Amino acid sequence: MVSEFELIKLFNGIGSKYNEQNGIVLSPGDDCAVIDLPLPIVTSIDASICDVHFPNNASAKDIGYRAVAVALSDIAAMGCQPRGFSISLSCLNQDISWYKDLADGFTNIADEFQMSLIGGDVTKGPLNINVVVYGTPYNSKFLKRNGAKKGDFICITKPVGRAKKGLEDFQNNKSESSFLEDYLRPKPQIELGKKIVNYASSCIDISDGLLSDLNHILVSSKVGATILLDDIPITSDIDDINAGDDYDLCFTLPPQMMESKFYKIGEITEELGIKFNSNKGYDASIKGFDHFKNE
Amino acid sequence: MVSEFELIKLFNGIGSKYNEQNGIVLSPGDDCAVIDLPLPIVTSIDASICDVHFPNNASAKDIGYRAVAVALSDIAAMGCQPRGFSISLSCLNQDISWYKDLADGFTNIADEFQMSLIGGDVTKGPLNINVVVYGTPYNSKFLKRNGAKKGDFICITKPVGRAKKGLEDFQNNKSESSFLEDYLRPKPQIELGKKIVNYASSCIDISDGLLSDLNHILVSSKVGATILLDDIPITSDIDDINAGDDYDLCFTLPPQMMESKFYKIGEITEELGIKFNSNKGYDASIKGFDHFKNE
Repeated sequence: MVSEFELIKLFNGIGSKYNEQNGIVLSPGDDCAVIDLPLPIVTSIDASICDVHFPNNASAKDIGYRAVAVALSDIAAMGCQPRGFSISLSCLNQDISWYKDLADGFTNIADEFQMSLIGGDVTKGPLNINVVVYGTPYNSKFLKRNGAKKGDFICITKPVGRAKKGLEDFQNNKSESSFLEDYLRPKPQIELGKKIVNYASSCIDISDGLLSDLNHILVSSKVGATILLDDIPITSDIDDINAGDDYDLCFTLPPQMMESKFYKIGEITEELGIKFNSNKGYDASIKGFDHFKNE
Repeated sequence: MVSEFELIKLFNGIGSKYNEQNGIVLSPGDDCAVIDLPLPIVTSIDASICDVHFPNNASAKDIGYRAVAVALSDIAAMGCQPRGFSISLSCLNQDISWYKDLADGFTNIADEFQMSLIGGDVTKGPLNINVVVYGTPYNSKFLKRNGAKKGDFICITKPVGRAKKGLEDFQNNKSESSFLEDYLRPKPQIELGKKIVNYASSCIDISDGLLSDLNHILVSSKVGATILLDDIPITSDIDDINAGDDYDLCFTLPPQMMESKFYKIGEITEELGIKFNSNKGYDASIKGFDHFKNE
């Protein structure tokens, strides 16, 4: 049997060595955590639910890492520096070793991004991990969704569909697949966000599918796009443009800031909507993941 | 059928009229919210799970109000001013009117405390509402758990057990009971926190039971207490000292700061542990609510 207080003790010290550099002046053990930095705070919350966001046979280490990684991807998409995270965990598991593995996953990502675990809540209930992330801008700038301008290039940095392939390979027990990591341990693009924050005109993380997330940029920016379907780097097939969970950033930038390491997939237009072009005969429509309709 | 985007639209404007006063410079609709205030940020997360934290037949309005109120109680316990909140909602309900009522509950408490709803996440899953709260100190001071000193009076401001009675009355359909509000719509003691922040030596909110929560103060402060069981204002019987959900504050203060509106229930001692006194023959032991063991 596992007690609430054992769990709190298990999670308590995660990332605490980074408290000072992150301005965490009061961390787990009081009613609230306190972040004291002379900077704006960017924050977001993401739920990771068993059998919705991850398969129930994933390892606790991967579940823990992934739950924080997907939340952190929102900090990357703002071009900000991670500072800390909080976790609200509901779980029915009574095996303390499972929680130790989960805590290891949290510790892995806390160390990777030098973040502090600053608070949380644990409750008995269906497995559900809510992660709140806190960050700060590197300078005064944020990446937002609403700044894309006519003529800007639309870019991504990795082939789409890698996570979808990783999940398929996981479910088919292909333990040697190089795509497993893409699904189980997505890398929040923190360094990329930091790099482009000064010149990208808009940015979003690709969590629900490239086209669906790009569409958020277009709507927010009140612009349209021409997409060159042939130029989108894919993993399995053209449907990957609607695959979720890749956690790359999709961003727009002035043509003169284009770099060879970015994949240009289209351009921003004044005319609203998305116009798809292809010489290979590809066709496309936006099929973003709607948690309430598409299950 | 309800879509994720309908829900996001439903929740989007809640409390937005308070954005400016709360330093919310970017609210729902981007990857993160941004809070820009020249002050430390206090933050906490609380889960409200159906059949654990509230009965499944409670109204959506009360469920929404209550989920935010219990989280806000942590801001009160820090002696801080509420600024905003985020919500991560998992739900299987497909009735849009239920969500409208839930949104009404959120709006009620946002208006009561002039807070902005700054972000969130909605997912299909068992009913689970995670609320993150954000606040700031009124001046440079916070109420913490670790400052109680020998000779300090231990105080509360309301009879304990009111919420327990309210839940019983709700379950017995006693719709005229004055205790229903205590359970369904607990009032976060924001004004009380503000009042005592300059002189209380420690503070905690009573969510898991008076004795259990007081014990957190004693452990954090490395002190003990003498409790006068006869002086504790109770609602039904002496077991109310272990009843949860009251969301009053339990705090310690120097004797000279005592006020007639506070109930003194004991004093801080150098000797560790709690010593119970009673002329009425009451006896007591700490039975705090452990989410993993006591269900």
